[in-house]
Amino acid sequence: MKQRNDIAVADVLISEVGPRDGLQSVKATMPTADKLRWLDALHAAGLREIEVGSFVPARLLPQMADAADLVRHARMLPGLTVMALVPNLRGAQAALDAGVHKITIPVSASAAHSLANVRKTREEMVEEVRAIVQLRDATAPGVAVEAGVSTAFGCTLQGLVSEDEVVRLAAALAKAGVNEVGLSDTTGMANPAQVRRLFQRVMDEIGDKTGAAHMHNTRGLGLANCLAAYDVGVRTFDASLGGLGGCPYAPGASGNVVTEDLVFMFEAMGIATGVDMGRLIAARGPLQAGLPGETIYGMTPEAGLPKGFISRTREAAHV
Amino acid sequence: MKQRNDIAVADVLISEVGPRDGLQSVKATMPTADKLRWLDALHAAGLREIEVGSFVPARLLPQMADAADLVRHARMLPGLTVMALVPNLRGAQAALDAGVHKITIPVSASAAHSLANVRKTREEMVEEVRAIVQLRDATAPGVAVEAGVSTAFGCTLQGLVSEDEVVRLAAALAKAGVNEVGLSDTTGMANPAQVRRLFQRVMDEIGDKTGAAHMHNTRGLGLANCLAAYDVGVRTFDASLGGLGGCPYAPGASGNVVTEDLVFMFEAMGIATGVDMGRLIAARGPLQAGLPGETIYGMTPEAGLPKGFISRTREAAHV
Repeated sequence: MKQRNDIAVADVLISEVGPRDGLQSVKATMPTADKLRWLDALHAAGLREIEVGSFVPARLLPQMADAADLVRHARMLPGLTVMALVPNLRGAQAALDAGVHKITIPVSASAAHSLANVRKTREEMVEEVRAIVQLRDATAPGVAVEAGVSTAFGCTLQGLVSEDEVVRLAAALAKAGVNEVGLSDTTGMANPAQVRRLFQRVMDEIGDKTGAAHMHNTRGLGLANCLAAYDVGVRTFDASLGGLGGCPYAPGASGNVVTEDLVFMFEAMGIATGVDMGRLIAARGPLQAGLPGETIYGMTPEAGLPKGFISRTREAAHV
Repeated sequence: MKQRNDIAVADVLISEVGPRDGLQSVKATMPTADKLRWLDALHAAGLREIEVGSFVPARLLPQMADAADLVRHARMLPGLTVMALVPNLRGAQAALDAGVHKITIPVSASAAHSLANVRKTREEMVEEVRAIVQLRDATAPGVAVEAGVSTAFGCTLQGLVSEDEVVRLAAALAKAGVNEVGLSDTTGMANPAQVRRLFQRVMDEIGDKTGAAHMHNTRGLGLANCLAAYDVGVRTFDASLGGLGGCPYAPGASGNVVTEDLVFMFEAMGIATGVDMGRLIAARGPLQAGLPGETIYGMTPEAGLPKGFISRTREAAHV
């Protein structure tokens, strides 16, 4: 729980990425008014960090054209850390102008993916991050900067990604001045042994600058990988309501870990997320209203909460 | 790896329950000839323990009427432990007559579920197990007897199930003479913290008589719960090819852990299962041929193996 979390009952921070990662990956564009209602519902469920959009040219991602409007609205929600993705310095400037609390910058660990995705080498991306940190320091020192190391556990282009290179990249990003370095299983290739080993190595290298685990459920291992990350001390987890986003595969084999299932797992384990399961499931309503016909996922919403389920968050709230 | 496993390369035993647990749960009856082809394909994939059927009156479960034929066929597959479920002494006699290598008997930890399911109290079931052990000792001393504690992690009828009662039941079953006591999340209510705690307590109580983890994926936690069980020392895992079986919920929210995803998780972690992923996925063919129109699941078969994937079983086989 790094900042702006005025609810003291959470043991882990669930960082909701659906409004960015999810909406960016579907063809339809959710109207701004629907996005605002969805953000309100996510906040009402107790989520205290939301990636509301990305600051990229609207011609590339028209779904994200209203990012500044979303930031301005989300800033009014009490206790919320308003995060946005930026690919470069220009995007960071726009995000800071809009008033974000936190910026996240994707940096590929895979040399092949970095060139294919942003036409920059990894070293050039570290320099871009350094420039963003300097801009932040000069103009908005209260804003947090996170680097998210993508393809940290494998790459669909080059296959294996060297763990040594991931650790070195994390160290370079920390040295460049970011507040947090997260690790992303962009391609759904991680396994729990690797997750434990790599997060442990990154923690040994950069300590409490180690950030979120961003796991994908492509091969069904999303929750097992989150558990593995928790086991070695990770306390921030990215997830997407309804598993929205990043699904190049078959139905159910979505990209992102489903927020509802992740929150259920932690709460059932007695680990408080600060999130109310009932309100979280209710937040699927505005998502579906804004994206009619889009399939959303989630085993816990479909099965329902088990008889006798005790929410750690609810217990803690009544102490 | 308790018995009859002539392949020395496995670190864990994947016990395939699809032909019993899966086929018992679907409406259609797979023709015997298709079942035999499916068993051959499962064995060819490297699976070395298969629950081939259950010995119950054919009027109750017509899908299982050919159990004796399946046992006789499966006994010819080299290195295979041929297992069958029996609900009582009469079923055990039939299973022993057919020539099984291993019997598994479900015993409910939930008082409510035990009465509803088999119209016996838990104490009466322990006596039934004791009678089966005596029959085994007298007539087929080489046959293993497993008790599977169902509803060990919660019950849809009574909600919470006391962990003390589960441990006491496991101890009583061990004292009754079974070789192994497994724990089943019959209702998909388990969480990883509970799995670790309860398996650890059972191990402390009955040591190496602790048997399989039988996890369900109802709320998406199946693999995370298997990982948790592995972490505390469990080395036998029940799973069902294609996630067949026990699915009272929505598509994808199946009951049983999907064998393909479980094997993928372990192999990716460097834990040898003895199972060949390619042949395992090929074994979906005879399953689908024998149950046309039945939906089967599995994230790994749909996504495919990741680029650069290394099978621990394949590596070990080449040492």
